[in-house]
Amino acid sequence: MRLSRYFLPTIKENPSEAQIVSHRLMLRAGMIRQEAAGIYSWLPLGFRVLKKIEQIVREEQDRAGAIEVLMPTIQPADLWRTSGRYDDYGKEMLRIVDRHERDMLYGPTNEEMITEIFRTSVKSYKDLPLNLYHIQWKFRDEVRPRFGVMRGREFLMKDAYSFDLDATSARASYNRMFVAYLRTYARMGLKAIPMRADTGPIGGDLSHEFIILADTGESEVYCDAAWLDADVLKQEIDFKSDLQPLVDEWLSKYAATSEMHDAAKCPVAPDRLRKARGIEVGHIFYFGTKYSKPMGATVAGANGEPVTVEMGSYGIGVSRLAGAIIEASHDEAGIVWPDAVAPFDVALVNLRTGDAKCDAACEDLYARLAKAGKDTLYADTTDSAGAKFATMDLIGLPWQLVVGPRGIANGKVELKRRRTGERVEMSLDEAMNRLTAKAG
Amino acid sequence: MRLSRYFLPTIKENPSEAQIVSHRLMLRAGMIRQEAAGIYSWLPLGFRVLKKIEQIVREEQDRAGAIEVLMPTIQPADLWRTSGRYDDYGKEMLRIVDRHERDMLYGPTNEEMITEIFRTSVKSYKDLPLNLYHIQWKFRDEVRPRFGVMRGREFLMKDAYSFDLDATSARASYNRMFVAYLRTYARMGLKAIPMRADTGPIGGDLSHEFIILADTGESEVYCDAAWLDADVLKQEIDFKSDLQPLVDEWLSKYAATSEMHDAAKCPVAPDRLRKARGIEVGHIFYFGTKYSKPMGATVAGANGEPVTVEMGSYGIGVSRLAGAIIEASHDEAGIVWPDAVAPFDVALVNLRTGDAKCDAACEDLYARLAKAGKDTLYADTTDSAGAKFATMDLIGLPWQLVVGPRGIANGKVELKRRRTGERVEMSLDEAMNRLTAKAG
Repeated sequence: MRLSRYFLPTIKENPSEAQIVSHRLMLRAGMIRQEAAGIYSWLPLGFRVLKKIEQIVREEQDRAGAIEVLMPTIQPADLWRTSGRYDDYGKEMLRIVDRHERDMLYGPTNEEMITEIFRTSVKSYKDLPLNLYHIQWKFRDEVRPRFGVMRGREFLMKDAYSFDLDATSARASYNRMFVAYLRTYARMGLKAIPMRADTGPIGGDLSHEFIILADTGESEVYCDAAWLDADVLKQEIDFKSDLQPLVDEWLSKYAATSEMHDAAKCPVAPDRLRKARGIEVGHIFYFGTKYSKPMGATVAGANGEPVTVEMGSYGIGVSRLAGAIIEASHDEAGIVWPDAVAPFDVALVNLRTGDAKCDAACEDLYARLAKAGKDTLYADTTDSAGAKFATMDLIGLPWQLVVGPRGIANGKVELKRRRTGERVEMSLDEAMNRLTAKAG
Repeated sequence: MRLSRYFLPTIKENPSEAQIVSHRLMLRAGMIRQEAAGIYSWLPLGFRVLKKIEQIVREEQDRAGAIEVLMPTIQPADLWRTSGRYDDYGKEMLRIVDRHERDMLYGPTNEEMITEIFRTSVKSYKDLPLNLYHIQWKFRDEVRPRFGVMRGREFLMKDAYSFDLDATSARASYNRMFVAYLRTYARMGLKAIPMRADTGPIGGDLSHEFIILADTGESEVYCDAAWLDADVLKQEIDFKSDLQPLVDEWLSKYAATSEMHDAAKCPVAPDRLRKARGIEVGHIFYFGTKYSKPMGATVAGANGEPVTVEMGSYGIGVSRLAGAIIEASHDEAGIVWPDAVAPFDVALVNLRTGDAKCDAACEDLYARLAKAGKDTLYADTTDSAGAKFATMDLIGLPWQLVVGPRGIANGKVELKRRRTGERVEMSLDEAMNRLTAKAG
């Protein structure tokens, strides 16, 4: 993409309404624009990040055997009356009356609707286990929306719902999501730590929050230093196998929120205990028959007897993650995107647009990068070199490939790694090799 | 995907609530489920089709130079007061009051919001032309929603908005969308014919509807037989060139809705004139300064003078297309998906699940198809052969690869083309070659 033809409305000044760094940087980098309190448009750069996050979430859900559907945003109120949550939910639910005076609502979550889909469609134990997920916009009418997309009112969530014949099988479904979540965050360059959690208004017996560490996190957490070296992506995982030993192994490493942490009883030696700030990026629940029982979601068991199914639900805040990743990965100059979620792979910076040699070298590199499958943002505008560097540092693409008149006279370009700031002068071919190598 | 692990709740009987064939077939094939009047869940098979359609739309928008963003579903009412449409829109607009008593609405379209984004972000003629699009759920509170996803209340729409410095450039933007639309529908296996249209509530000077021919279409249309042989995909198109000659060439072929058609004045010889039923699947508008003027969307021109930008908008009903394609492509037995939008490429039918040789051959073919990048639905259930054939005809995958005990004893399988019904017995290798050949 040529910057001259792109829509990247960056902002120089720090927006006064933004209290946290991710909100500031998303506004400044032209990723989002507020349309109303807690409601955002995703501008081209932000949209690309959102899609990358969504795709990683999708691939890991699919890998774990979940099946994608798409439920609507607007739901009938009657559905929520069957579970008893219509009156319980309070003012956070956006309630709507349609032209025929029917009570509707903008879905804050989908336990009721998916249970109803299951109830009317699935009849036999043979069809279990089943895990259905969707990635859809939700609305929660927060009394005080803030922190940009971290606590918006309209937000994109992945929610999965598992259906099983018994508690053992339900636990296996829970474990598949547990491992899928670890993989999902790791692929985004995040270290997410599962912590036992309250089940809150969703209800149920078993629940974990996934919390990433970031200096600007909303809550305090404690964990064993072993968490910091752990790498789930190194493990070959067979989702058809029993994952309980793996889950137990992960959970054997201590981690607790400040509410759950008790210094007197903590099993971790003081020199191994880390205290940090954390941001919640996912929450999984096993809640048994809480919804299936009142809504009559049963299947015929092996002997024809009706069995009320065991359920769990599994949420990831997709739009929230865009902010959370920035909280975990930024510096003074701006965002530092992990490779897997970067809006473009490479910033190609032409230090003197209009100079025949610089232009020719850039066009050549731009074409070669495209051919190699690298998404490139080509800074081909007539802004000053300083302005271009500042913008590229702000938007945080993993690599900057810098072409200037002095270097190009000697057949050299400069390759800068955004994360480390390391700059190396090299030939065009060397730069191409570095950028297109498997390791990225 | 193994059918035994999939969620495909097909229905044998014709649902009484469905008046048109696409609605009947989408319900019967387990593609969608109604959650409220005009509001649908997309079940796994339907979701796959929706995503295929969306992706084709996206690729052609990108090819034509449009840039993707994502605006929220909920909009503040004040925005619509600036254009004067808040009061005009009537009961089709879903109006919402939030917890702080602010007037909100579920966006039926996005002219106001995109104009506001443009107004606050783009300052110079150098940033033009600009075309921003998004693919987002909309809501129109139809008084009588019907025909399934063809006339739903919550529906997925691609809407693009172009911004230009003058009328000539705006016409060029219009032409790019015109050609992109022709390509979009052609890639989905549809013949969409552009027809001059009223601009209606959007307003403006120039407008075309894109109408596909289907026996069950909602309106009567007339066209030159030349349309039936036309193939836009055969033409190499350079979106950077002047597309006016190409657009003129397309528009030189006669086509008119029954309201616009006048038999006495029709320029087409009677033997070349075709009368058919049509379904609208897209609508493009050039409306000049209708929104930019009241909303103050100006840029600095070449001499610094403020110029009110010229705008157009361009809609494609993404969810509607799922129904429209079925209206245009089905038979007595069910849906007949065009290859490009089929939910899976191949149905692998095991006529005797449990038979060691059939199972082994199917597993082998399933693995080879996956390796070749073909999406396969493997009918591995214990249903009867007749039930499997009926289901596979109903859901309409382009190819059925049938493995039975008699054939496999001789190393043969049967390959059926859903569209023609043609069945050919051949070796496993021949079948693989046919299925993985470029021509599909």
